[in-house]
Amino acid sequence: MIKVGIIGSTGYAGNELVRLLLQHPEAEIVWYGSKSYVGQGYSDVFKNCFEIVPDKCLDDDIPELSKKADVIFTATPQGYAAGIVNDEVLENAKIIDLSADFRLKDVSVYEKWYKIEHRSPELIKKAVYGLCEINREDIKNTRLLANPGCYTTTSILTVYPLAKEHLIEMNSLIIDAKSGTSGAGRSAKQDNLFCEVNENMKAYGVATHRHTPEIEEQLSYASGENVLISFTPHLVPMNRGILITAYATLKKGVTAEQIKDAYNKYYKDEYFVRVLRDGMCPETKWVEGSNFIDVSFKVDERTNRVIMMGASDNLVKGAAGQAVQNMNIMFGLPENTGLKLVPMFP
Amino acid sequence: MIKVGIIGSTGYAGNELVRLLLQHPEAEIVWYGSKSYVGQGYSDVFKNCFEIVPDKCLDDDIPELSKKADVIFTATPQGYAAGIVNDEVLENAKIIDLSADFRLKDVSVYEKWYKIEHRSPELIKKAVYGLCEINREDIKNTRLLANPGCYTTTSILTVYPLAKEHLIEMNSLIIDAKSGTSGAGRSAKQDNLFCEVNENMKAYGVATHRHTPEIEEQLSYASGENVLISFTPHLVPMNRGILITAYATLKKGVTAEQIKDAYNKYYKDEYFVRVLRDGMCPETKWVEGSNFIDVSFKVDERTNRVIMMGASDNLVKGAAGQAVQNMNIMFGLPENTGLKLVPMFP
Amino acid sequence: MIKVGIIGSTGYAGNELVRLLLQHPEAEIVWYGSKSYVGQGYSDVFKNCFEIVPDKCLDDDIPELSKKADVIFTATPQGYAAGIVNDEVLENAKIIDLSADFRLKDVSVYEKWYKIEHRSPELIKKAVYGLCEINREDIKNTRLLANPGCYTTTSILTVYPLAKEHLIEMNSLIIDAKSGTSGAGRSAKQDNLFCEVNENMKAYGVATHRHTPEIEEQLSYASGENVLISFTPHLVPMNRGILITAYATLKKGVTAEQIKDAYNKYYKDEYFVRVLRDGMCPETKWVEGSNFIDVSFKVDERTNRVIMMGASDNLVKGAAGQAVQNMNIMFGLPENTGLKLVPMFP
Amino acid sequence: MIKVGIIGSTGYAGNELVRLLLQHPEAEIVWYGSKSYVGQGYSDVFKNCFEIVPDKCLDDDIPELSKKADVIFTATPQGYAAGIVNDEVLENAKIIDLSADFRLKDVSVYEKWYKIEHRSPELIKKAVYGLCEINREDIKNTRLLANPGCYTTTSILTVYPLAKEHLIEMNSLIIDAKSGTSGAGRSAKQDNLFCEVNENMKAYGVATHRHTPEIEEQLSYASGENVLISFTPHLVPMNRGILITAYATLKKGVTAEQIKDAYNKYYKDEYFVRVLRDGMCPETKWVEGSNFIDVSFKVDERTNRVIMMGASDNLVKGAAGQAVQNMNIMFGLPENTGLKLVPMFP
Repeated sequence: MIKVGIIGSTGYAGNELVRLLLQHPEAEIVWYGSKSYVGQGYSDVFKNCFEIVPDKCLDDDIPELSKKADVIFTATPQGYAAGIVNDEVLENAKIIDLSADFRLKDVSVYEKWYKIEHRSPELIKKAVYGLCEINREDIKNTRLLANPGCYTTTSILTVYPLAKEHLIEMNSLIIDAKSGTSGAGRSAKQDNLFCEVNENMKAYGVATHRHTPEIEEQLSYASGENVLISFTPHLVPMNRGILITAYATLKKGVTAEQIKDAYNKYYKDEYFVRVLRDGMCPETKWVEGSNFIDVSFKVDERTNRVIMMGASDNLVKGAAGQAVQNMNIMFGLPENTGLKLVPMFP
Repeated sequence: MIKVGIIGSTGYAGNELVRLLLQHPEAEIVWYGSKSYVGQGYSDVFKNCFEIVPDKCLDDDIPELSKKADVIFTATPQGYAAGIVNDEVLENAKIIDLSADFRLKDVSVYEKWYKIEHRSPELIKKAVYGLCEINREDIKNTRLLANPGCYTTTSILTVYPLAKEHLIEMNSLIIDAKSGTSGAGRSAKQDNLFCEVNENMKAYGVATHRHTPEIEEQLSYASGENVLISFTPHLVPMNRGILITAYATLKKGVTAEQIKDAYNKYYKDEYFVRVLRDGMCPETKWVEGSNFIDVSFKVDERTNRVIMMGASDNLVKGAAGQAVQNMNIMFGLPENTGLKLVPMFP
Repeated sequence: MIKVGIIGSTGYAGNELVRLLLQHPEAEIVWYGSKSYVGQGYSDVFKNCFEIVPDKCLDDDIPELSKKADVIFTATPQGYAAGIVNDEVLENAKIIDLSADFRLKDVSVYEKWYKIEHRSPELIKKAVYGLCEINREDIKNTRLLANPGCYTTTSILTVYPLAKEHLIEMNSLIIDAKSGTSGAGRSAKQDNLFCEVNENMKAYGVATHRHTPEIEEQLSYASGENVLISFTPHLVPMNRGILITAYATLKKGVTAEQIKDAYNKYYKDEYFVRVLRDGMCPETKWVEGSNFIDVSFKVDERTNRVIMMGASDNLVKGAAGQAVQNMNIMFGLPENTGLKLVPMFP
Repeated sequence: MIKVGIIGSTGYAGNELVRLLLQHPEAEIVWYGSKSYVGQGYSDVFKNCFEIVPDKCLDDDIPELSKKADVIFTATPQGYAAGIVNDEVLENAKIIDLSADFRLKDVSVYEKWYKIEHRSPELIKKAVYGLCEINREDIKNTRLLANPGCYTTTSILTVYPLAKEHLIEMNSLIIDAKSGTSGAGRSAKQDNLFCEVNENMKAYGVATHRHTPEIEEQLSYASGENVLISFTPHLVPMNRGILITAYATLKKGVTAEQIKDAYNKYYKDEYFVRVLRDGMCPETKWVEGSNFIDVSFKVDERTNRVIMMGASDNLVKGAAGQAVQNMNIMFGLPENTGLKLVPMFP
């Protein structure tokens, strides 16, 4: 049994970790961390866990926790994990950080986009970017895992095969992203009230969203080019789900068949990436509650562009599910252990 | 491994059976029945099952199916199961019928409320009403199981302890029920279009809804009285969830403590019934995707009434989940095998 | 032109007053009051008013406002209006208070249910309860109007004819109410976040909701009896709309025809109350955005009960619309002036 | 009083025409046409009109109608209007067609994208494309008005000033569009059921949507170039609203200030086009129920692109509202007569 601690267990991603880990045959949660609810019953905060989780919320004490746990998930605001992780902690326990603190290799890029000083830049080089399907080998051996963001995971996996195979003009790439509202977190903010979000749709963070450099860095590795993209997130009146629509100009002579081949090359053996059949478009509901990501594409000969589409559940493959997938890899378990949840419909 | 056949696998309840059984460690689906989609890939009809279910939909052939399966779930329109089940089928396979065909003991009541002639009335007396928490012993030994409806399950379990313990005036019982829209099925009807249901709420079937006699019959057994109730269902703009608000006059001198004791007496050892703490009101989202039903109550001394509340997922405890729970009982498995899904939030 | 001031113009009800008054041919808003947004452009707070309302939000200054305005709407938290209205203000301007401060005639009942000390109990007797269809004559001559709440308006108008004509046992009355989320206001609270409300339903304030005594008082006047009711509000995942389902035992021998006659007697000439045809059930969407309230009923001979139903838009007939209707009466205008908005569908 | 007939009054756009025209001071509906509901009360089909519209639905009889009406709105499926309009009808009455039949000047483009033979191609050249803000002068004098589609109106008005002023590379233009579900119509289709749309999002008609050539044609006129675009519509779980996010590469040296100037040049005097302040992003709810369209933009210097955004209510500015605006122009009325509805929030 893997002993698991969760820092930030009372956010939406934290609760999703709890949901998944309670159903995981090889994991046991030993620490429900929550600075906001110290001493309160976890199931008083998330009543879906009533009579399932008897534990109380504990204050953050990483040194103590790192002695009790084999792995610690940090589902915390930006900047927090960088302040509590250090070499000693890493000797005791593996860290899977769901925040952005260890995702970007260049600390100056991090500090520019997040407007936070990074408190442990020396650890960044030890961290592995946990996009399982792409970095699987490195993930096996790391003790510090930077779990990718929701927009990022869906964007990169949707575009990756075409970038890697040099089928598209990387500087033409535009990603238009739509997200359910759980990505905005559980803090009480007027903008996230039911009556403000329901029956409404808007773009936000236009040309400035912080997931942009993360996508660019990973697609630069894939393509071998210095990639700059347009990335526009939108808020959608639904709880869960991310839908990516990506546009790129095809390199000269590239055919639909080559694109299909590229997707198959990288994903045909991937359990969690489902390449849809021609003519199908991903729908967020078809992956809801599961760790799957569905991708497909359409070549538009009129404009010589390819439209790539991807859908995932932002709290699962976009956060907690991928974190557990990474845990499985880091502990030598079959990658889909505890993650074979069938999407819930409707 | 229990070999399972599903008749009507392409409705919402049928797909929920598929979701649950795919995650069940002791069951294997051997037959995806669907008259509407014969020959089509199951995952073309329900794309959440893409790359998970490779099977094609089969036409209904009960004699053939009953030789291949240990148990057959019929998730079919009213009247259909009564026309295909017979003694020979029952010798070969156990039947769990999710329709109303075998729920009511008095065939004339069935024919009056459903306005259908019952095609196998002789089988009714063999059937056991599958409300697990109440009829567990009888369920163990039956081969014909009448799985209760969604409104019914939630209504009865919410009221049962008070009826059984004679704490309320049964003739004062009023049940106001609210349901998500998946209960209306997947057929294309204008009334169920997104734009008709969304941002809308209404009562329907007022004083005539067909779940009424089912609730009355079971509460009559519990209380030993001939119970007549007012039952009003409402359609709510959400996919899943049933919420019951029930009102009854307290018998003379009955206290809140007695009521609490009654709930505890019947439910404290029940895995799937969660009696909430004083002051908590059930919310449908806290049970979504799971087989739990949450119940609570409030005594109103001003009016000498008790308000009882219950919430469940209409497709799980109200349909497919309870059907699997019944299967577990009928095959001697621990009752929550494959059903320990943690509710999904949000 | 009636000069109008609004205190609390930046809540949902306040903004609805703005929407209606901007479209009113005989009214002009001269004061957009908002303690929270003093100095900010009104249309920065409610961007639906962008390029429509150039005004800035003003701090509350009732003496000053009462000199500028013919009528002041107070859409403020409980207790606030009672602290700022006095005889001098009332000499200068008429007051239409959308809070509960002047609705209950017995100040001790107010203080018990609202747990606030009333700061101007001497004004209560001057106030008229502004349920237009019932108190029209008194409304004409008052300067202090207590505008009814949303649950109250819909509940009372749904039940009123049967109470007034003594057709039902008043002590059997149970009101099960369902409300859209805009009734919860625009303050940032975790409970009202999109992800907490969406795909969810719950009862709240069971047996303790503060609209209860308001309904009881008015139905006591109507029936001539001392009425105690069960009233249970529920939160529904939609922005607008209130649906009332009310249950009562029929007095001996009362027929469906008598009930129909009662509804017609009181409402056949009422512009805003639509008595639906037999068999129709009100739906909140059919009145959305309008000042209509739709009512209907069903007699259940099995239980000797009548089920009464009513639907309205909680922000219009349940708040701002009725307030404007009251203003029209108080200023001698045709009652539906500026209020003939056709419900918006879908 | 303008006498108005509506063909197709029982679709969502038809009902929106009814809502707007009932509130229009200079129009009177004399004909509620509906082939599907001939002889039924209009308010039985759209119960929002209960006690407001006493008329029955009439079968289509254009010759008869054209004698009674000054203007006929055709809110009908593609191909229908082309079959019933002719010179004789046009002599009697003006036609405002909400379908696509007369929008495209090149009949072969129409027949290719709509896969319908056009039954009156000779009328196309008489038709004026009714995008009011752009073709106002021509609209004044036409008797055959082709009312633009919802995606089209929002897309074109969002991009128009930059196309007209040659500020963007037209061949780089990508339009990612998101629409509420009312655009899908009121026919009973499984894909549009509440449970299929709710909590879901998807792209559809990728690279093949029929509004594409309409946008291209109009932007070609504006820019003087032969424009080909990528256009991807998405279905969003809300009733109303269209949001456009458009991407284009800036021509060399173009600044944000030039772009702002272009928007102001064309829209500063337009009542219905609201150019938002810098940093604001349009939200569909801020225009709901109104004829406004909100536009804004953001220059991304990293990629040398401009992101243009626009939001409108698809049933108002995207259909019925613009049709009424066109009627006002065609009959010499102030353009916003009957259309000053304030957006409804929430």
